[in-house]
Amino acid sequence: MLAKMPDRLGKAMQHGCLAGGKRLRPFLVFQSAALFGSPPADMIRIAAALEFVHCYSLIHDDLPAMDDDDMRRGRPTVHVAFDEASAILAGDALLTLAFGHIADADGISAAARLELISKLSRDAGAGGMAGGQALDLAAESTSLSESEIARMQSLKTGALIAYACEAGAILMDAPEADRKRLRQYGEIVGLAFQLADDLLDETADAAVLGKAAGKDRERGKKTLPALYGQDWTRQRLQELVAEASAVLADYEDRSAMLVEAARFIANREK
Amino acid sequence: MLAKMPDRLGKAMQHGCLAGGKRLRPFLVFQSAALFGSPPADMIRIAAALEFVHCYSLIHDDLPAMDDDDMRRGRPTVHVAFDEASAILAGDALLTLAFGHIADADGISAAARLELISKLSRDAGAGGMAGGQALDLAAESTSLSESEIARMQSLKTGALIAYACEAGAILMDAPEADRKRLRQYGEIVGLAFQLADDLLDETADAAVLGKAAGKDRERGKKTLPALYGQDWTRQRLQELVAEASAVLADYEDRSAMLVEAARFIANREK
Repeated sequence: MLAKMPDRLGKAMQHGCLAGGKRLRPFLVFQSAALFGSPPADMIRIAAALEFVHCYSLIHDDLPAMDDDDMRRGRPTVHVAFDEASAILAGDALLTLAFGHIADADGISAAARLELISKLSRDAGAGGMAGGQALDLAAESTSLSESEIARMQSLKTGALIAYACEAGAILMDAPEADRKRLRQYGEIVGLAFQLADDLLDETADAAVLGKAAGKDRERGKKTLPALYGQDWTRQRLQELVAEASAVLADYEDRSAMLVEAARFIANREK
Repeated sequence: MLAKMPDRLGKAMQHGCLAGGKRLRPFLVFQSAALFGSPPADMIRIAAALEFVHCYSLIHDDLPAMDDDDMRRGRPTVHVAFDEASAILAGDALLTLAFGHIADADGISAAARLELISKLSRDAGAGGMAGGQALDLAAESTSLSESEIARMQSLKTGALIAYACEAGAILMDAPEADRKRLRQYGEIVGLAFQLADDLLDETADAAVLGKAAGKDRERGKKTLPALYGQDWTRQRLQELVAEASAVLADYEDRSAMLVEAARFIANREK
């Protein structure tokens, strides 16, 4: 399949997903799965699929018709390095590739693969990430309430992060109670991730972030740090770390890396 | 999931996929499956998924950065009726929804669902439909050879039509030899479809097509009818109908509808 891919399209896909980044979602898949034993080698395909979906969303969000960003991870965005059509198609192709990777992960049970695909479709689609991006764009022209901001953010970034954590439990065929617990952890971490992101947009500079800073305020987008201030935000982030840790308490020491991840996400400086 | 979908995004998705059209791909799924017995009710989910993928590709292809078309099926395209960002997201969300629909089609065996997803990913992705669109856009600035035109078309429209025919056999858990035969029929029909489309672009008027006509020539895109003329094209279309019929000969009368479909596709006037 890859051999037949047009050269320029393949390069645009690579530009959009091999440019570094924290690889947070794959990390969460790995660590969640490890709670339930020794994961199969094919776990990497699930993790890669998630990263493809994340990167496709960045490529499309950066487009002129969306957030219109020229820089990402310290490099030109895909539509700047290539062209708009290539960026649209590269995103489409990465999203399409993601689902095939999960379907082909033979080392994971058929039931788990189907559930992974079903839930990725839900969490990345109109009722999840894509819907959150639609609400975010709409927020530029209307004023959102605090609960609307929370809903938009839980869809836009929360859904895929929560999925990453749940996916680790699903691919290990863990019991339903464990899947729910990992999902809950993921939702808390998703909140912390977004809150830290909004705080950074207010406080960090573009050189450290590798992308434009201060864009939310400039566009009149309301965020929780803008509404309640930086002190409130830092306090709330520490509460979220404590909640994430409490959800995982039953796993005792095995969850140390996930607790540490929550702390890292809440305190990150880029 | 659908209840949580932002209103405007849901409307953009509906605009892009509930606007009529021939529903050729779902029809091919139905008819291919019927060769192997009485299909499960969940076949409709596979057929719908294919139509979602087809409609997403039209929404994105119509964007200003791609083919820049204002009209489709006699109505304004999604980015004209809504806006560019909504059109990009509506396409993304339809593509995402398609894979979830297949995963959730409980009436079809797990093995068949996974194969349907794997092959849809291949045929719609960078090595299939999305790759074909990338080559088609590149063709506006470079001159393609006849074999390059054939490759571009086999990816851009052929892959998904061939998939539709193969999908009917897969969802019925038909033997490998039948799957291959249906795939072969689909590839021939895909060729006929594209050739008829190119002929219509030269001969029909926009009012009948419900979209702009004569655009290929205007853009300097080479097509086979432009290279070899209308008589050659009509002759070649009849040969393809005969080939499609021959491939299905073993199914005798049961394949009458598929043979008729090939004839319809080759002779269509809109």
